[in-house]
Amino acid sequence: MAKKRIGIVGYGNLGRGVELSIAQNNDMELIGIFTRRDPQEITTVTSDANVYSIKDIFTYKDRIDVLILCGGSATDLVNQGPEYAESFNTVDSFDNHAKIPDYFAEVDEAAKKSGHLSLISAGWDPGLFSINRLFAESVLPTGKTYTFWGNGLSQGHSDAIRRINGVTHAAQYTIPIQNMIDSVRNCENPVCTACDMHNRECFVVAAANADKEYIRNEIVNMPNYFCDYKTAVNFISEEEFFAKHQGNAHGGFVIRSGNTGLESETKQVYEFSLNLNSNPEFTASVLVAYARAICRMASNGETGARSVFEIAPALLSPYSIEDLRKRIL
Amino acid sequence: MAKKRIGIVGYGNLGRGVELSIAQNNDMELIGIFTRRDPQEITTVTSDANVYSIKDIFTYKDRIDVLILCGGSATDLVNQGPEYAESFNTVDSFDNHAKIPDYFAEVDEAAKKSGHLSLISAGWDPGLFSINRLFAESVLPTGKTYTFWGNGLSQGHSDAIRRINGVTHAAQYTIPIQNMIDSVRNCENPVCTACDMHNRECFVVAAANADKEYIRNEIVNMPNYFCDYKTAVNFISEEEFFAKHQGNAHGGFVIRSGNTGLESETKQVYEFSLNLNSNPEFTASVLVAYARAICRMASNGETGARSVFEIAPALLSPYSIEDLRKRIL
Repeated sequence: MAKKRIGIVGYGNLGRGVELSIAQNNDMELIGIFTRRDPQEITTVTSDANVYSIKDIFTYKDRIDVLILCGGSATDLVNQGPEYAESFNTVDSFDNHAKIPDYFAEVDEAAKKSGHLSLISAGWDPGLFSINRLFAESVLPTGKTYTFWGNGLSQGHSDAIRRINGVTHAAQYTIPIQNMIDSVRNCENPVCTACDMHNRECFVVAAANADKEYIRNEIVNMPNYFCDYKTAVNFISEEEFFAKHQGNAHGGFVIRSGNTGLESETKQVYEFSLNLNSNPEFTASVLVAYARAICRMASNGETGARSVFEIAPALLSPYSIEDLRKRIL
Repeated sequence: MAKKRIGIVGYGNLGRGVELSIAQNNDMELIGIFTRRDPQEITTVTSDANVYSIKDIFTYKDRIDVLILCGGSATDLVNQGPEYAESFNTVDSFDNHAKIPDYFAEVDEAAKKSGHLSLISAGWDPGLFSINRLFAESVLPTGKTYTFWGNGLSQGHSDAIRRINGVTHAAQYTIPIQNMIDSVRNCENPVCTACDMHNRECFVVAAANADKEYIRNEIVNMPNYFCDYKTAVNFISEEEFFAKHQGNAHGGFVIRSGNTGLESETKQVYEFSLNLNSNPEFTASVLVAYARAICRMASNGETGARSVFEIAPALLSPYSIEDLRKRIL
């Protein structure tokens, strides 16, 4: 069978993760990495990857089955999603939850018009976590779903700290509160917001003459990001920062505690969790599996935008449905 | 919108669970319970359920959208699955893993011939556990999947003990070994069989004059069931048996420890778990959600047999895809 031909747009952590994941999947072939930078200056992770200028991407239109968009949601995907859906089947990890309906509509229109198929918002959240929220509430309609994130580094919160005067480097970890996880697992159905479920821990490198009390106050009182959370601020040296806070670990839990029975008296707990040593490499692996599904569905003539909710699980696997039923059903 | 009209075949624990689950789903309507027993002798869990003789089921052919088959795999489903697929859309929980390919083929042939749609082997294992094994190996192709069952009562093993001379009652619990769960979560990829991953604990009521050492030896040396496991046998009174061993709790874990990265050096752990106070009520809730999916797919003209691998998650939900994308993606 012909290999599925993949293109990568954007070569940061996620793009590198996709490149690595393709190397783990024998039915996939990396056609090229497309970058805004000078292709000559890019050193790829695997030895044999081709790097091209993003300006030349449309000349590869007929040589690529699925384009995996590896940019950020805020500035890259919001434009690239609709633009590339006009010429390619695409998969992306658009993760701005509030803007998903608008983004879906734009990509859907572009993909339908051009006869392509696009999957938006794959990865783990949105992605596998979303699917588990859906399964959980569908099989346990009487109940409550909780999503915990972490322990892991939040890029958005780290960026927010770095914008404070006098901060040179910052890492912010989101830490789920164990007592709350236990309470949810015990079916206590606590009434709580994300602020009650997580603490925030910050590791900050301050400039030599910076006012640390000013920085601490700016962080803990920052609206939306920190003011409603229990936030710890630790000042550390640049050496310690580079030694200890360069990791990409992340993960979390989706837990639904539901009830069945005549008086809804029977407790049932549904739980999904991820413990990831590399958030971008795992997210990339999910994107590659969904690229396989999109390739198959596009071959069947499907067009428009899709979410992970609309993809049958078997389409993610390189194995035949007969093998899957026999081996792991 | 018209409610989805459901029929239940077989009225044991699972059938009662389906009746209770339908009451939690506003878009579903229970048309009737079909039983081999005298319908007059059945007391239903909910007050308003109709009970009919199984002999009359074909007269309800046009009044039922999906029939949920609630019998056991070994003697009931193996015949009922193909038989009812000739006249109804069906959903069942066929759980004899080794015979799934044959059973699928028989149901598929009957359903295709008659223009109906049948989902086989739904529930949690096979079912949600299978889906998680599939997702896990698809997104982490380099890795190893482990399934732990329990802590929970195994019907098959309890039955096997009851067949020993001198045993009046028996309950057998399958207990996952915590050290092994920890080892898997720590990505140690232990080489092990189900016997290394679980212990078995038996609670046995012996007849007054029975030889307890004989019974203990028969149990711990029983081929296939016990001889390869660490098995504890506890003799208890009939009073204690009825007081403490009538529960239906069960559950388990699907864990895949996988690796990404250039040298497959990055550890990633995927975990799904269920902690169920009622195994039959939860299994029933899964069957009802899949009945919704089968009803929709049949309305679109699909025929033949399906497994849970072939059902897009969104089809399980009573909510619209637009709502799902906005609310939980």
